[in-house]
Amino acid sequence: MSDTLRRIALARRPKGAPVAEDFSFETGALPEPGDGEALVEVTHFSLDPYMRGRMDDAKSYAEPVAIGATMTAQGVGRVLASRAEGLTEGTLVTGMTGWASHAVLPATDLTPVPDGVEPTAVLGVLGMPGLTGWYGLHEIGQPQRGETLVVAAATGPVGSMVGQLAKAAGLRTVAVAGGAEKCAMARDVYGFDAAIDHRAHDDAKSLRGALAEAAPDGVDIYFENVGGKVLEAVLPLMNTHGRMPVCGMVAWYGGAEDTGDRLPAAWRSVLVKRLKVQGFIIMDHWDRMPDFLSDVGPRVAKGEIAWREDVAEGIERAPEAFIAMLKGGNTGKQVVRV
Amino acid sequence: MSDTLRRIALARRPKGAPVAEDFSFETGALPEPGDGEALVEVTHFSLDPYMRGRMDDAKSYAEPVAIGATMTAQGVGRVLASRAEGLTEGTLVTGMTGWASHAVLPATDLTPVPDGVEPTAVLGVLGMPGLTGWYGLHEIGQPQRGETLVVAAATGPVGSMVGQLAKAAGLRTVAVAGGAEKCAMARDVYGFDAAIDHRAHDDAKSLRGALAEAAPDGVDIYFENVGGKVLEAVLPLMNTHGRMPVCGMVAWYGGAEDTGDRLPAAWRSVLVKRLKVQGFIIMDHWDRMPDFLSDVGPRVAKGEIAWREDVAEGIERAPEAFIAMLKGGNTGKQVVRV
Repeated sequence: MSDTLRRIALARRPKGAPVAEDFSFETGALPEPGDGEALVEVTHFSLDPYMRGRMDDAKSYAEPVAIGATMTAQGVGRVLASRAEGLTEGTLVTGMTGWASHAVLPATDLTPVPDGVEPTAVLGVLGMPGLTGWYGLHEIGQPQRGETLVVAAATGPVGSMVGQLAKAAGLRTVAVAGGAEKCAMARDVYGFDAAIDHRAHDDAKSLRGALAEAAPDGVDIYFENVGGKVLEAVLPLMNTHGRMPVCGMVAWYGGAEDTGDRLPAAWRSVLVKRLKVQGFIIMDHWDRMPDFLSDVGPRVAKGEIAWREDVAEGIERAPEAFIAMLKGGNTGKQVVRV
Repeated sequence: MSDTLRRIALARRPKGAPVAEDFSFETGALPEPGDGEALVEVTHFSLDPYMRGRMDDAKSYAEPVAIGATMTAQGVGRVLASRAEGLTEGTLVTGMTGWASHAVLPATDLTPVPDGVEPTAVLGVLGMPGLTGWYGLHEIGQPQRGETLVVAAATGPVGSMVGQLAKAAGLRTVAVAGGAEKCAMARDVYGFDAAIDHRAHDDAKSLRGALAEAAPDGVDIYFENVGGKVLEAVLPLMNTHGRMPVCGMVAWYGGAEDTGDRLPAAWRSVLVKRLKVQGFIIMDHWDRMPDFLSDVGPRVAKGEIAWREDVAEGIERAPEAFIAMLKGGNTGKQVVRV
């Protein structure tokens, strides 16, 4: 326990891929809770690709992080001091603490961590990424037994949830991941029927060939979380009436590739294949969290749904872990131990 | 009545925009109906943008027209000879006759033209284009009173149906059309609240400015039938949870513009605005024709839904009328009087 607040602030807006100089490490006095609030000592916080979007000063679904403000994140930790009725010191809670050692939050924005669950599970497999995969697959993807699903970043916390749920629902599951190690993990840990290393394919056409072999009956659901080369490769392989839940486009967060206009070809696929492409932001569907937890929680507890995490040690290492994550440097859910 | 078959065949596959030399005028003996078939003398057939897609040798939702084969089209005419029970000579029918003076078709593929309806109405306002607008707006667009709709090719048979149905459902309707004459027609004949001449705007940014003025509350439904500059202009104006039924992309049928890659920006809109983009082909929903006719038929009969047609005189003029239509040369539904 420390009596100094340590936090990572946004020093400037990144151009393309973030670099270390875009962040600053700040210290200060511990904040004090007001009425109805609690001070949380953060043990872990989550790093997720969506945070890259918050670093831009562009109109989006959420306010950008201000220059000098603490980077946003879901965290987990213990209540150090409480001025809220019913929330006692020592309670293990989760909430939007930011990249920080401590945070003051309204008690209404803090959720106790369920008993019998690893505290960091609420940041990943049973948190926002897990809910994202579960909601997007079931509500938009509408999987049918015997169909084929493709998901990229397949060993990440969203992709691995999507793949395991789809496999359990009787689909053929095809992973796209970066490197041989992640491909092996996709098959061995998350049970994908096939895994393709996108780094082994220089262009979309080559990647498409590998995907066509792995998905001989075409692709019914492409769970979209990357955009870029994978999207370009998959689009012509989509089956009629295919579905594409769109929850991210990490390949484009750092700027676009130097290609010709790929919009006409994409639109042609949407039309000719009668695709449904639907964007979603999991914050809109947070009310489904109890349904998700009652469906997936027991399957995680029984070990039917696997999850892995990468832990960066020390809050000072959060920027480098985030930068590495955007480049695919992690193998599991990336968290930071403060 | 003539005893010579006259027809327009596909002479070669067009490169980009079709030209006269891509078609040939052919004559021959009248075909004879077999068992269960009828010979129809065609009085009118329809010209529609989707036919451009059938001229390419690319995998699509329908087989391409073979070189030397008659161009495909819905037509209307009278039965000259019948070898099908229950279908008598002289009956006014519609079916897929092609660009031809006569056609032999199975009686099961011919539909009598309802009494009290102009025969050519079954090619437009009460035919495939009308059903396309009705289905796409209601089933995919899901219009809500007070919302704003944008549709391009707004004086065409699809766009004018969409605009009138949306207006009747309490939406603000914004037309995009080519030239002052069509803009006036969009407002005066089809009741659009605003009409924008895309020819007065050189690029998507300029067009976007005009659209933003015409749609001050943003765009909830963009009924997509053109692609290109209009799509690029509209995407950033879409409201959260907007819907885009996609039934065509005529701006791209003749090849793409020379631009940078617009796919990342489009995908960003889909994600950030949580858009639903859904392609559809009206042939998949032909079973809804009775619902459509019972909803829209009486409104057409009462004059509540306006329609206009352009008639090209003589089958020999079909190619030039088709070429002109793809460039926006028509003002109403384009048909050919044989």
